[in-house]
Amino acid sequence: MQPGTTSTSLHVYGMASSGNCHKVKLALDILGIACRWHETDIMKGESRTPEFLRMNPNGRVPVLQVDANTFLPESNAILCYLAEGSPLWPGDRLARAQALQWLFFEQYSHEPYIAVARFLRLFVKRYDDPRFPDLMKRGYAALGVMETHLGDHDFFVAGRLTIADIALFAYTHRAGDGGFDMARYPRVRAWIDRCLQQPGMSSMPAPA
Amino acid sequence: MQPGTTSTSLHVYGMASSGNCHKVKLALDILGIACRWHETDIMKGESRTPEFLRMNPNGRVPVLQVDANTFLPESNAILCYLAEGSPLWPGDRLARAQALQWLFFEQYSHEPYIAVARFLRLFVKRYDDPRFPDLMKRGYAALGVMETHLGDHDFFVAGRLTIADIALFAYTHRAGDGGFDMARYPRVRAWIDRCLQQPGMSSMPAPA
Repeated sequence: MQPGTTSTSLHVYGMASSGNCHKVKLALDILGIACRWHETDIMKGESRTPEFLRMNPNGRVPVLQVDANTFLPESNAILCYLAEGSPLWPGDRLARAQALQWLFFEQYSHEPYIAVARFLRLFVKRYDDPRFPDLMKRGYAALGVMETHLGDHDFFVAGRLTIADIALFAYTHRAGDGGFDMARYPRVRAWIDRCLQQPGMSSMPAPA
Repeated sequence: MQPGTTSTSLHVYGMASSGNCHKVKLALDILGIACRWHETDIMKGESRTPEFLRMNPNGRVPVLQVDANTFLPESNAILCYLAEGSPLWPGDRLARAQALQWLFFEQYSHEPYIAVARFLRLFVKRYDDPRFPDLMKRGYAALGVMETHLGDHDFFVAGRLTIADIALFAYTHRAGDGGFDMARYPRVRAWIDRCLQQPGMSSMPAPA
C-alpha cells in the first residue's frame, strides 16, 4: 500500500495468497488507494463464519467494505469499482467492453482450471486428484487463448495496463504452482515480465 | 426483435436455446436495437469452425459483431456494451459495481452448475452423469444466495430491471430443465414472474 495518498475508510477482507485477493491488492497499490486489509484465512473457515456470511452470503473472498453497511464481493467487480475514472479502466465504450470480456473470460475459462489446480497442489496437496486431467486440458486451452491474443498486443486491451491485465496476471504468473508448463507460452511469459515492470505490480506471496 | 427502431450493422452469432445467448436477445429486445441473428448450432460444432474461431478464439457463443473487424465475445460483456447509457445499466458507481458483482456471480457460482445440469439433461441426455451430485449441490447454493438477496429486493440492483436481472434470469427461469426443484425458492419464482412482466422480456425456447 502506498502511504498517505488518499484518506479512506475502505476495508478489504482477503487472503494474501489467493489470486482473486491479490488482484485487489494490485489495484490498490497501483492506484495509491489507502485501505485496511483484514487477512481472512479460508483454510481455517474464516469466510464461512456467520459474521463473514453477513458481508457476503456467497462465502468467498475478497470482499471490499465500501462503508459501514455496504460490502462488495467478486474480485473483478471490485477491480471495476476501484479503477473507475483511472487509466486502469478504459474510457472508450468498446475498450471497456473488451476489458470486461477478458474479466469474464478469466472467471469462466481460466480461474476455474488454473486457480483450482494451484489450490489442489499448493493448499491441500491432493496431487492425484481425479480432476487434474480436465483441469490441465482446460487450463492449457485458456493459456493458448492468451498466447494467441498476445501475438499482436502488448497488453490485453487499449495498449496499456488495465484491469484486464491485473485480473489475468493474478493466477497466470503463478500457474506453475498448479503444474502448468509455462515454457510453451513465450508471449504470456513476456507479458508477465511487462506487467511486473509497471509501478505497483508485484508477485503474489506463497501460502503462509 | 422490435422492428425499425434503430438502423444498425450489429450481428449476433448465437444459439436461441442457450441461456448465454438468450441474455443478448433480451437486451436487444428490451432496448429496441435492430440486429441480425445468425443461429449457430454448437451441437453441430458450428462454434469450433476456423471461421468461428477467427471471431472468438475461445470457441463460445454468443459473439456480437460490432463492425467489420470487431467481435465481442462473453455474454455478460455484451450485455454491458449494449446497455451502456440505458436504464438497464445503473448510472451510479456503486450500483454499477453491484450489477457487475451479480454478473460475475452468475458466471462463476451459478451458470457452471445450473446451465451445465440443463445441458446434460436437455441437450445430451446424460441423466446419470457423475457430475450431477456436485452440480445440484452448488446450483442449489446459488439459488439460495439469490433467494436470500430477494428477501428485501424486488430486483437485484437499483430497484429496477438491470442487466444483473437479465443475466440471472436466463438460466434461472429454466433451472427446472436441469432437475432443480424451484418450489423451494418462492422469492426467486416471484422475481421470475416480475421479470417476465417487463416489456421485451421473454422465456427461452427449448432446443430445436
